[in-house]
Amino acid sequence: MKPVNTQCRLAARPTGLPKATDFTIVDEPVPAAADGEFVVEIDYLSIDPAMRTWMNAGRSYVPPVQIGEVMRALGIGHVIASRHREFVVGDLVSGVFGVQNYALSTGAGVAKIDIGLAPATVHLGALGISGLTAYFGLLDIGRPEPGQTVLVSGAAGSVGSIVGQIARIKGCRTIGIAGGEQKRRWLVEEVGFDAAIDYKTADLRAELKTHAPDGIDIFFDNVGGETLEAALNRLARGARIVLCGAVSQYNDAPHGPANYMQLLVARASMTGFVIFDYVNRYPEGVAQLAGWLTEGQLRSHEHVEHGDVGDFPEALLKLFNGENTGKLILAMRG
Amino acid sequence: MKPVNTQCRLAARPTGLPKATDFTIVDEPVPAAADGEFVVEIDYLSIDPAMRTWMNAGRSYVPPVQIGEVMRALGIGHVIASRHREFVVGDLVSGVFGVQNYALSTGAGVAKIDIGLAPATVHLGALGISGLTAYFGLLDIGRPEPGQTVLVSGAAGSVGSIVGQIARIKGCRTIGIAGGEQKRRWLVEEVGFDAAIDYKTADLRAELKTHAPDGIDIFFDNVGGETLEAALNRLARGARIVLCGAVSQYNDAPHGPANYMQLLVARASMTGFVIFDYVNRYPEGVAQLAGWLTEGQLRSHEHVEHGDVGDFPEALLKLFNGENTGKLILAMRG
Repeated sequence: MKPVNTQCRLAARPTGLPKATDFTIVDEPVPAAADGEFVVEIDYLSIDPAMRTWMNAGRSYVPPVQIGEVMRALGIGHVIASRHREFVVGDLVSGVFGVQNYALSTGAGVAKIDIGLAPATVHLGALGISGLTAYFGLLDIGRPEPGQTVLVSGAAGSVGSIVGQIARIKGCRTIGIAGGEQKRRWLVEEVGFDAAIDYKTADLRAELKTHAPDGIDIFFDNVGGETLEAALNRLARGARIVLCGAVSQYNDAPHGPANYMQLLVARASMTGFVIFDYVNRYPEGVAQLAGWLTEGQLRSHEHVEHGDVGDFPEALLKLFNGENTGKLILAMRG
Repeated sequence: MKPVNTQCRLAARPTGLPKATDFTIVDEPVPAAADGEFVVEIDYLSIDPAMRTWMNAGRSYVPPVQIGEVMRALGIGHVIASRHREFVVGDLVSGVFGVQNYALSTGAGVAKIDIGLAPATVHLGALGISGLTAYFGLLDIGRPEPGQTVLVSGAAGSVGSIVGQIARIKGCRTIGIAGGEQKRRWLVEEVGFDAAIDYKTADLRAELKTHAPDGIDIFFDNVGGETLEAALNRLARGARIVLCGAVSQYNDAPHGPANYMQLLVARASMTGFVIFDYVNRYPEGVAQLAGWLTEGQLRSHEHVEHGDVGDFPEALLKLFNGENTGKLILAMRG
């Protein structure tokens, strides 16, 4: 056990990309559990694009992280001390534990994880929020039908790589968009997309015309900006755009889709969702995702960096620089 | 009968607002009906915001009007000559007859109208495409529930003024947005909106906060631009944005809604529709709208200008200058 609880706290609201000085690293005493509480030692931190939005002031689907507050993060850890009836020392748990070594918890929003089912990191990937986001976003909002064409942006990311696989399982033709030739090949060769486009070098609109000659039935968007505009111009009649994220927009002045009236031309819809609304259906999602993993129909891809709490800002930048393929995880040094 | 068929043809694709020189007025011989055809003398021309979009090149829900072609327009007229089995001289008909005095028709897309039910102009308003657009857009896409808050932009226009009335009939609280104090008062006093906002002088966001304290459940948008952005910031959970038009965008460089990710925050959707898709359900819509008119629950508002084919460009500008309340119609001088 570490002698102190190192925490990464939000020091300033970034403009543009987050930088090291937007955080302060502080050492606090390791917390002690009061009645009804337990202490988790965090083993893995989930590094997510949504983190950038949590750093902004203003109306969103969760309150902003306050200045001086521990940076919000999902994680996986093990219980090291407990005065809670349902959690005992040694339990492996996932929850919103924050960017720190030790978290005090009342159990709210905490789930026990079964590493007999899959390794711990998979519980942050295909069996975690990323997998569930892909599952409910694609199936509930996108409503794929066999033979339809599904376009995914941020396809090499944690959610996108799973969306592509679920769409394929559902009998759809899948097209992924990612940055760089290496990711493009990875999407086709490892993840199993039918086609992939490197937005950094390709003419996106021309490629979409080639790969989606009859139009896009579902666009699962993690990116926004010009990617969204290109997809809007290529929608099939009755298309559904699933708004999952807008990573191109988080760090810059936002740019709305100038051609949004293509939604009218295509009789299409653009719908936002928040995965936390599906909490009562997580068991259904996890069971289905675990089944596909077991059958070998689905693969979870994790990109694990090893470090400690002080390495969090750099890990977050890796995400925005697009250095990861699959789920980016910061594994805490023991 | 006039000695010639005066036509208004598209001469140039406008940038910005259409102007007189974008059209040419030409005289052609009055057409004669061949077998299976009939000739309509046009009495009323429907002046619609969508006309501006028909003048643009590029992908839309109908092909653009070609340069040199008679400007597309809905209208109402009477049959003056017929070699068609279903249409006889004297029939009153509505259809896409174009901006001209006489149209040759095979009957495709032409409906007989019953002026026993309502005066001819109402068949271009509440019982025409405007009423049907309001009816199917609000009910099918918006899905109003009693007690919900419905916001309508372009509320003093032909579609908007009917949307507000149907929403009220369905038990919703209605808020209209229009330009000018006169229209604002007209919306509340004549059309029956619960509240109305003059976007030209009001702080739209502050007014929406006042009038929709619990958020907007349905936004029926005819305008786009800053109005759409203000509404996005005020959506209730699960809100539906019905994309009917974007009149603020037709004449300028388009400006996408920068805050479209509020759709995610609100778990909301933005959906486009085209009224022509509902053609098989028009009878249902007309029957219901006629019922409400008869019962006095719905009023059709028409703004009739008198002129001839050469006055069309000016009438169209009136629309974009917001000079009309209700359906703008150009009545042809006999």
